[in-house]
Amino acid sequence: MSSRLPILVDLKFDPETVARILKTAFADRGSINLADPASKALDLTGIDYALLWKPDADIFKRAPNLKVLFSGGAGVDSILSIPDLPDIPIVRFADRSLTTRMSEWVVMQCLMHLRLQRAHDRDQRDRVWGKLVPPEAAEVTVGVMGLGILGQDAVAKLRVMGFNVIGWSRSKKQVEGIETFDGPQLDTFLSKTDIVVGLLPLTPDTTGLYDKAFFKRLRQGGALGKPVFINAGRGKSQVQADIVASIESGVLGGASLDVFEVEPLPANDPLWHLENVFITPHDAAISEENALFRHVETQIARLERGEPLQFVVDRKAGY
Amino acid sequence: MSSRLPILVDLKFDPETVARILKTAFADRGSINLADPASKALDLTGIDYALLWKPDADIFKRAPNLKVLFSGGAGVDSILSIPDLPDIPIVRFADRSLTTRMSEWVVMQCLMHLRLQRAHDRDQRDRVWGKLVPPEAAEVTVGVMGLGILGQDAVAKLRVMGFNVIGWSRSKKQVEGIETFDGPQLDTFLSKTDIVVGLLPLTPDTTGLYDKAFFKRLRQGGALGKPVFINAGRGKSQVQADIVASIESGVLGGASLDVFEVEPLPANDPLWHLENVFITPHDAAISEENALFRHVETQIARLERGEPLQFVVDRKAGY
Ligand SMILES: NC(=O)c1ccc[n+]([C@@H]2O[C@H](COP(=O)([O-])OP(=O)(O)OC[C@H]3O[C@@H](n4cnc5c(N)ncnc54)[C@H](OP(=O)(O)O)[C@@H]3O)[C@@H](O)[C@H]2O)c1
Ligand SMILES: NC(=O)c1ccc[n+]([C@@H]2O[C@H](COP(=O)([O-])OP(=O)(O)OC[C@H]3O[C@@H](n4cnc5c(N)ncnc54)[C@H](OP(=O)(O)O)[C@@H]3O)[C@@H](O)[C@H]2O)c1
Repeated sequence: MSSRLPILVDLKFDPETVARILKTAFADRGSINLADPASKALDLTGIDYALLWKPDADIFKRAPNLKVLFSGGAGVDSILSIPDLPDIPIVRFADRSLTTRMSEWVVMQCLMHLRLQRAHDRDQRDRVWGKLVPPEAAEVTVGVMGLGILGQDAVAKLRVMGFNVIGWSRSKKQVEGIETFDGPQLDTFLSKTDIVVGLLPLTPDTTGLYDKAFFKRLRQGGALGKPVFINAGRGKSQVQADIVASIESGVLGGASLDVFEVEPLPANDPLWHLENVFITPHDAAISEENALFRHVETQIARLERGEPLQFVVDRKAGY
Repeated sequence: MSSRLPILVDLKFDPETVARILKTAFADRGSINLADPASKALDLTGIDYALLWKPDADIFKRAPNLKVLFSGGAGVDSILSIPDLPDIPIVRFADRSLTTRMSEWVVMQCLMHLRLQRAHDRDQRDRVWGKLVPPEAAEVTVGVMGLGILGQDAVAKLRVMGFNVIGWSRSKKQVEGIETFDGPQLDTFLSKTDIVVGLLPLTPDTTGLYDKAFFKRLRQGGALGKPVFINAGRGKSQVQADIVASIESGVLGGASLDVFEVEPLPANDPLWHLENVFITPHDAAISEENALFRHVETQIARLERGEPLQFVVDRKAGY
C-alpha cells in the first residue's frame, strides 16, 4: 500500500541527531535517510512523502513522484527557491515547542533592552554599582511585524509582561488587546513603535525591508530614548550595513539579531562588537527533530484519513 | 483638623527627585521634607503620618505622636531594626508598578539562564557562531521562594513563558497551576528545583538561609545540568562566600543577584567576575516616587474614611 512506503528524509541538520531520532520515528512506515550512504543506490521513484531541509540538488530527479513535501523549518524561503520544485503541496513546520522557544527569545530580547542589560553588563565588568533607571514595560511600545503563528504568541506574552504592544501584517488581523495595522499602514505603525520585532517570512516583498529609511520611521524619543531593532525572521529582510550605520549615527539605540544576510555571520562583521547589540546564531527557535517528525506523522495521518493538510504554503504569497 | 496636617517625609532616595515630585504630591495636606534644611527648626510634635526610608536617628524624638508609619520600600527589615520604633501600624509599600518591574527582572533572569545568555555573550565577544542547544522552558522547574505579592506575580508570568513552576511559603498557599510547599516541606521543594528564585523578606528566619547546605539540596542534573540561584529579596538572606564557593565547586551553575550582604557590593568582591553570574545594583524593582506617594495618599484616605489600612506589617512575623 502506497501509504506505507517509507518517508524520504534529507535534513541538513546535525546528522548524528537526525539518524538517532529517525531510528524510532515513523514506526509504521520507516524512513530513508539520504545522509546514509546506503541510500544512494535506492530507487526512490515510488516515494510519496519527503521531509527536506537544504536537500541534495538531484532530489526531485531521483524522487519524481512525490505527493507532499514537508519543510524541515518554519520558514520556506529556502525551499521555494530550489530549482525545479515540483508543483505539489508544501507543508511548513509549525509546532508548540518551536513557538514557545521563539517567544522565549523575543521576550528576553525585549526585556534586555528595556532593562538596559548591556549597561548592566558593562557596570558588572567594571565592578561599578551603577545608577540606571530604566522605564517600565508599560511605557514602551513593542511593534511586532508578522502576526502569524510566531507573531501572535509573542504578542500575547509581551502583553503579559506589561509592554504596550501593537502589530502589523499583510492582511488586517484582530488580535486581543492590541492595535493592529495592515500593509499600507506601515508608516503609522512604525511611528508608534519603540522596539520593532521582525517575525516575517522572507518573500520578495520583505526582502531588504529593514533599511535606513525604515529605521528613520521608528519613533524617536520614546521612553528608551531611541528605537531598537529586533529580528528573528530572516536575515535577507535586513540591510545589515544600514543597521550598522543607523546605530553609529544614533538613529537606532540597539538591536537583537538572530538572523543575518549571510550565515554564519562572518567573523569580521562590525555587528559583533557594536554598542547595545545582541547576536545569537540563528538559534532563537530551532526545529527540534522529535517535534518535527511528530508533526509530519500527524499531517500524513490527516491526509490518509481524508482530512486536509495544515500549514500548507501559499506559493504565490511566498510563505 | 488633624487629618489635614502635612505628612512628614524622610526618604534617603535621590534628593532632587523626591523634592521635585513632592511639590505636587499630597495636594490636600502638603508635606514636610526633612531633606530640606528649613525643616530642621520645625515643631513636629503634632504630626500624624510619616513616610520613611533610612530616616534620621532622632526622628521619633522629634515626632513623638505619629499614628501611622509608611515604609518607602516593600521590604521593612531596615524599618523594623530602627531603635525606639514606636508601637504604631507600619504600612509597607506595595504597588502594581513595583510588582511589574520585579517580574520583568525575575522573568528576564530566568530566561537568560535558560537561553545560556552568558555563553552567547562570550561567543559574541569572540566573534564565534556557536552551537548552543538550550532546553526549553517546560523542561526547567523554577522554584519561587515567597508567594506574597511579588512571588505570586512572578509565578504567573513564569508559567506564561512556559516554565514549570513550584512555590514555597511559610504558610501553605493555593496558587493556580503550581504545586506549592510550606515551611517544613523545604527539602522536597528544593529537590525539585532547577532555578531557585528568592523573593523572601528579611526576617530572623530568613537570615543566612541561602548557604552551602541549601545549594546542595537543589536538584542536580536537571535540564540545565546544574541548579541556578536567583535572589531579589534581601542580601542578608544569602551567605555570599557560600555562593562563590558553590559556583567554584560546581554545585551551582550560575546566579543572578540584585541584593547583597553589604550594598553597594564592594569593588573587590569575587562575585563581580564569577562565571555565569548576573549582578544588578538593587534595581530589580525600585520604589517609584509618584507611585509611592499615591499609595500613601490612598492609605490615608482609607483610614480617614474609617476603612482599615492595607499592607500592614506583622511585627511579630517581621514582614
Ligand atoms: N530565527 C528562527 O529561529 C526562526 C524559527 C522559525 C521561524 N522563523 C521565521 O519566522 C517566520 C514567521 O513564522 P510564522 O510561523 O509566524 O509564519 P506565519 O504563520 O506564516 O506568519 C507570517 C506573518 O507574516 C505576515 N506577512 C508576510 N508577508 C508580509 C508582508 N509582505 N507584509 C506584511 N506582513 C506580511 C503574514 O501576514 P498575513 O497574516 O496577512 O498572512 C503573517 O502574519 C518564518 O517564515 C521564518 O522565516 C525564524
Ligand atoms: N530587590 C528589590 O528591588 C526589591 C523590591 C521590592 C521588594 N523586595 C523584597 O521582596 C520581599 C518580598 O516582597 P513581597 O511584597 O512579595 O512580600 P509579601 O507579600 O509580604 O510576601 C512575603 C512572602 O514570603 C513568605 N515568607 C516570609 N517569611 C518566610 C519564611 N520564614 N519561610 C517561608 N516563607 C516565608 C511569606 O509567607 P506567607 O505567605 O506564609 O506569609 C510570603 O509568601 C520584600 O520583603 C523585600 O525584601 C526587593
